[in-house]
Amino acid sequence: MTSRVMRARGAFAAAARNQRKAGRTRARLMDAAVQVLARDGFEAASVNGIAAEAEVANGTFYLHFRDKEEIAGTVAFGIAADVAARLDAAMTDIDDAVERVSFATRQFLNLATSDPAWGWALFRAAWALPALREQVVAYLRADLLRGRRQGVFKIEIDAFTVEMFASMVMTALFARLSGTAGEEAGSKATELALRMLGVSPARARRVAWRRLAGLSL
Amino acid sequence: MTSRVMRARGAFAAAARNQRKAGRTRARLMDAAVQVLARDGFEAASVNGIAAEAEVANGTFYLHFRDKEEIAGTVAFGIAADVAARLDAAMTDIDDAVERVSFATRQFLNLATSDPAWGWALFRAAWALPALREQVVAYLRADLLRGRRQGVFKIEIDAFTVEMFASMVMTALFARLSGTAGEEAGSKATELALRMLGVSPARARRVAWRRLAGLSL
Repeated sequence: MTSRVMRARGAFAAAARNQRKAGRTRARLMDAAVQVLARDGFEAASVNGIAAEAEVANGTFYLHFRDKEEIAGTVAFGIAADVAARLDAAMTDIDDAVERVSFATRQFLNLATSDPAWGWALFRAAWALPALREQVVAYLRADLLRGRRQGVFKIEIDAFTVEMFASMVMTALFARLSGTAGEEAGSKATELALRMLGVSPARARRVAWRRLAGLSL
Repeated sequence: MTSRVMRARGAFAAAARNQRKAGRTRARLMDAAVQVLARDGFEAASVNGIAAEAEVANGTFYLHFRDKEEIAGTVAFGIAADVAARLDAAMTDIDDAVERVSFATRQFLNLATSDPAWGWALFRAAWALPALREQVVAYLRADLLRGRRQGVFKIEIDAFTVEMFASMVMTALFARLSGTAGEEAGSKATELALRMLGVSPARARRVAWRRLAGLSL
């Protein structure tokens, strides 16, 4: 995930350059966490190491984050929101909500599992950081509402239905990260979710299992 | 959940009475945790308090459980497995898998949320204690396979599909516990899951929203 998306060192700091000092320090810590977690792995990474990489005192770290777990989750969601925005941009020419939902779900899972450490950070933080989760889910909600307007999704799209869909994606993510499922997990989850939304079984299967073009975000 | 199901003090100890000493001590700690967690709540409960209630030394606690979180999750799953077994027994006369899945899902959610402290313990432990989770999910799997044999579920029932269904139930549990959904969450989740499995939208709606008879387990 990082390798393909967060190519620029200091991407969080760059995005925060017009914020106040606290926001910029927070962003610098997040950039440092990307480096340290990628270099040392989650288990070996430490708050000390992240603070040192960011060139701030340990105490400064704790003004912004509770622990390593929290900064990792926050960074993972920062990356995920970036991925979601880029996927959305890549789908400008796709109008059909069935195609959009299938494309986004499968690509998102592929990207989120391309670096297992970030995938796990995302998964672990999903329930703990609801406000960040919401940023990613907003893209899903927009496509579900689009499908409702187009008449291809035949069920009310309320917060509960969106959560159900999101939980299916998270379960597929868990299955891939823990090795109980391979790349087919994205297609399986997509097929089941499209059926749930009222897409015909035949079309759900066809769209979900169609060969997925490579993606350069 | 406890109030309706774990009525007998010492239920875990009673079930473990023919086990070796280690198993009996573990069960006594679990019974103590039920009492202390019900009396003091999760936040206020302590390992000290649980060990004292069980009349064992603190060190003995740590031979069996890592922390308060782990014993709470283990107890919650013990209760959940008991609830699942009783629901299964209550459904002896129900042959149709669509009816069974709807009944069990909705009743399970009602019971799991009747005591929020236990509901949260169950939810928190769901990913952390996969072996215990499996005990509960086994009932779900059996009914999904039954529906496949009966021809009412029109999709392959593999581990992935079972996990998808279970994650929908957990998401409904989360929505109820966090107050973003009320009692209708069980019906909504059931309707969406039945559609996913290939039950017609009309039947899924009818079965999932039918008035649910009270239950005395």
